[in-house]
Amino acid sequence: MLWYNGKLIDAKDATFDVADRGLLLGDGLFETLAAFNFIPFRLDAHLERMMASAERLGMGLDREALQEAVLAVAELDNAPCVIRLNVSRGAGPRGLLPPETTNPLIFATRAPWQRSIAFGEATLATVSIRRNPTSPTSSMKTLAYLDPVLSLQEARAKGADDALLLSPTGSIACTSMANLFILNQNRLSTPALDGNILPGIMRRALLEVAPHLGLDVSEGDCSLEELRKADLVMASNSVRLITKITQIDGKAVSVHSMARWAAFTDEITKLISKECGGFTLSR
Amino acid sequence: MLWYNGKLIDAKDATFDVADRGLLLGDGLFETLAAFNFIPFRLDAHLERMMASAERLGMGLDREALQEAVLAVAELDNAPCVIRLNVSRGAGPRGLLPPETTNPLIFATRAPWQRSIAFGEATLATVSIRRNPTSPTSSMKTLAYLDPVLSLQEARAKGADDALLLSPTGSIACTSMANLFILNQNRLSTPALDGNILPGIMRRALLEVAPHLGLDVSEGDCSLEELRKADLVMASNSVRLITKITQIDGKAVSVHSMARWAAFTDEITKLISKECGGFTLSR
Repeated sequence: MLWYNGKLIDAKDATFDVADRGLLLGDGLFETLAAFNFIPFRLDAHLERMMASAERLGMGLDREALQEAVLAVAELDNAPCVIRLNVSRGAGPRGLLPPETTNPLIFATRAPWQRSIAFGEATLATVSIRRNPTSPTSSMKTLAYLDPVLSLQEARAKGADDALLLSPTGSIACTSMANLFILNQNRLSTPALDGNILPGIMRRALLEVAPHLGLDVSEGDCSLEELRKADLVMASNSVRLITKITQIDGKAVSVHSMARWAAFTDEITKLISKECGGFTLSR
Repeated sequence: MLWYNGKLIDAKDATFDVADRGLLLGDGLFETLAAFNFIPFRLDAHLERMMASAERLGMGLDREALQEAVLAVAELDNAPCVIRLNVSRGAGPRGLLPPETTNPLIFATRAPWQRSIAFGEATLATVSIRRNPTSPTSSMKTLAYLDPVLSLQEARAKGADDALLLSPTGSIACTSMANLFILNQNRLSTPALDGNILPGIMRRALLEVAPHLGLDVSEGDCSLEELRKADLVMASNSVRLITKITQIDGKAVSVHSMARWAAFTDEITKLISKECGGFTLSR
């Protein structure tokens, strides 16, 4: 079952206009959310991000309709799930330019959320594809998502779990699917929202909980050297929550802060539990 | 009618898997071709480009099946048409990574080709989005085509017909839909295939005919200054053929070579006529 254009239907009954701009040009947006006990975690933040992106694309969207789509699939079942909310700008004439009035297509699907993907470990490999801060697509979750796909393929070919993407100037940007955090003593650093990275919802959650753990927070340029020398490197993602980075380009990351790691997982667990009901995530 | 997954069907009967990676991630490719007298112009070159791109994406494709799709819609009607050939990597599990075995979906559509779009004029505006030579998507026609869309929107908002896109170093790259050529005296220059631009099929045709017109050809870095001082600036595109650029950022391009322009249109007309039958394109 999926939510499609205003109602729940069987997946096999979903029809797409062959002139759909999401399909032909990647002209659309998506959000990926985790839901527990029927409740999508940080739904408002996800919807706000999608609405802000739609405005940048010049695509009129109805926030209520987006919320309805997410809640419809969240409420199908009590089991933890991953929800993907998709919006295409809709059909258009031949060519690149959108028509003056568009009729966006909204659809949302759900898949089981596996506990095993939360609070995991991952190795990274730097890849040849760099972020493009001049492109709005670098800071939005658009249906034109091939750069992250190709980055991940390149990292996997190098034997790593995920890609480490750099900005054009060589500073740390993100992974193919997550924001990055560096812990050094009492300072938690993360790349700034400078157009190279997505404004992650879990990124924001980590910045919120850091002060509770007695940490100073800084957003700015992070070098590969800093990443390699950190006490702890973490990746944040709405579905995997936080992931401990164990290797970068085949070299182990020094992991001095196991107590800090445990404290972060506890804080994130508390946030989810508070918003989505008493849910205990095993470490 | 469209060609869809091996046969001609009504457009309204096209179903898409909601797990289709072309739709969800832009994980696919397309080609746009013009056809005259049932014959797609430079079909082999378009198919070779798509096969080469598929190999870069690690996507197995059957060239025969692609050709069958294009010819099926070309042969529907004698009227000149624009054919769009699309390939999606097909359905996959949740997440970015393609499955080990994929079942690509091929579909092709046609739309009328209007004589009025050939050999036209256009104004350009430089835009904020720059090309990203580290991304394979900058040199392939992928379904993740939002950068060109947003570039064109930005140019239109500035009152121009098309966008002038620069490389990260500020050299000339392309428009949102065409390659660029600069004529200065007896030299025809065009940006090199350095990862910032698509290897255009009409670009290649222009490079072929230039020596017939007594021109020296050079592929390399072109500056905005060179573009502004040129005798003639042209954009090349498989559907619009060649377009004369009349303004860049509101300033007229000096057009000293109207005889050259006429000669180029004659040569392109001859190429098409030779391949697709006796077809005269009015200037």
